[in-house]
Amino acid sequence: MAENHSLELLVQALRRLPGVGVKSAQRMAFHLLQHDREGALHLAQALQHACAEVKHCTLCHTFTEDEICPTCRDVRRDRSQLCVVENPADQSALERTGAYKGLYFVLMGKLSPLDGVGPRDIGLQKLFDRIDTLVDGAREVREVILATNFTAEGETTAHVIAQALKARGVNVTRLARGVPVGSELEYVDLGTIAHALVDRR
Amino acid sequence: MAENHSLELLVQALRRLPGVGVKSAQRMAFHLLQHDREGALHLAQALQHACAEVKHCTLCHTFTEDEICPTCRDVRRDRSQLCVVENPADQSALERTGAYKGLYFVLMGKLSPLDGVGPRDIGLQKLFDRIDTLVDGAREVREVILATNFTAEGETTAHVIAQALKARGVNVTRLARGVPVGSELEYVDLGTIAHALVDRR
Ligand SMILES: [Zn+2]
Ligand SMILES: [Zn+2]
Repeated sequence: MAENHSLELLVQALRRLPGVGVKSAQRMAFHLLQHDREGALHLAQALQHACAEVKHCTLCHTFTEDEICPTCRDVRRDRSQLCVVENPADQSALERTGAYKGLYFVLMGKLSPLDGVGPRDIGLQKLFDRIDTLVDGAREVREVILATNFTAEGETTAHVIAQALKARGVNVTRLARGVPVGSELEYVDLGTIAHALVDRR
Repeated sequence: MAENHSLELLVQALRRLPGVGVKSAQRMAFHLLQHDREGALHLAQALQHACAEVKHCTLCHTFTEDEICPTCRDVRRDRSQLCVVENPADQSALERTGAYKGLYFVLMGKLSPLDGVGPRDIGLQKLFDRIDTLVDGAREVREVILATNFTAEGETTAHVIAQALKARGVNVTRLARGVPVGSELEYVDLGTIAHALVDRR
């Protein structure tokens, strides 16, 4: 395959996907070219379209195709509560419980000092600005619920945010430890997440 | 994420990759959009380019960008030997040994009756036509080496090809089964040892 330039480039490009090694990439390239070229072209279009259309919500920072995402625009939601999650999959898990009616802030990451990921990398200032925004002269957000994952990095992230917000006099709660320690929200059953919401401290 | 059309379409498109479930697809889409849009656009181009450029070698059926692949064009190779493999990765493994100097035929699949994959699906007729090609009034291929995998499906494929070729009076051999180099007998499975005994030289 060494002389097969396009195929080699495709294998290399597929390796940039998370969790895909050289064997998987070869298997994927082989499968697409042999059995599913329509799927390959479909994927190419989906990649280009998403890169062009998907941006971040001005208010909650999650992925959206609009200036402000549908959740933040929803007038039925309680604007005094702001739930902080690591990523959109965690937000989806919380939404599926049906137990939360406030707004979200999606960090799109977590603090990870060992990997050199600091407050600036996950845009914590954006979160603080969001909380400090005044509506009719007062803070709209009255409670911040920290729903980062119950991993070492998620706990660190929650701790740092909690310290910064307490200094601001904002009411900060954390999901209850009904969620098994060491696990990631998107893999936890919905009932557990719902209880953890109700028991938040 | 339900209202996020481009993102949803990207997740669905990624799921067409072999071995990628909905969780992996979400993780990939998230990673690309958050951390590597350049990689996403690069992958899109690589997919389109490979689909446009990669075709099958007229002689050996492997992936190539030319009418006839570099291996089949190589005048230093022994044209009287034809090694039959399941896919390009198997061909690469044989090439890396440096022990084979003949030509190849790449099935791009294997017989799998249980999955409904029959002789037509892997183009066996193309292999037989290749072998029956006359050069100066005689068959150029004098030995066919069956190097399909030593799995149930690979063995079935080898068996079917061997039967068809013996009826044509072509000399057919099979890679030897035996104890892997560097292994100790007590850790080798009994079926392998039994075959190594039968195939002893
Ligand atoms: Zn939003
Ligand atoms: Zn060829």
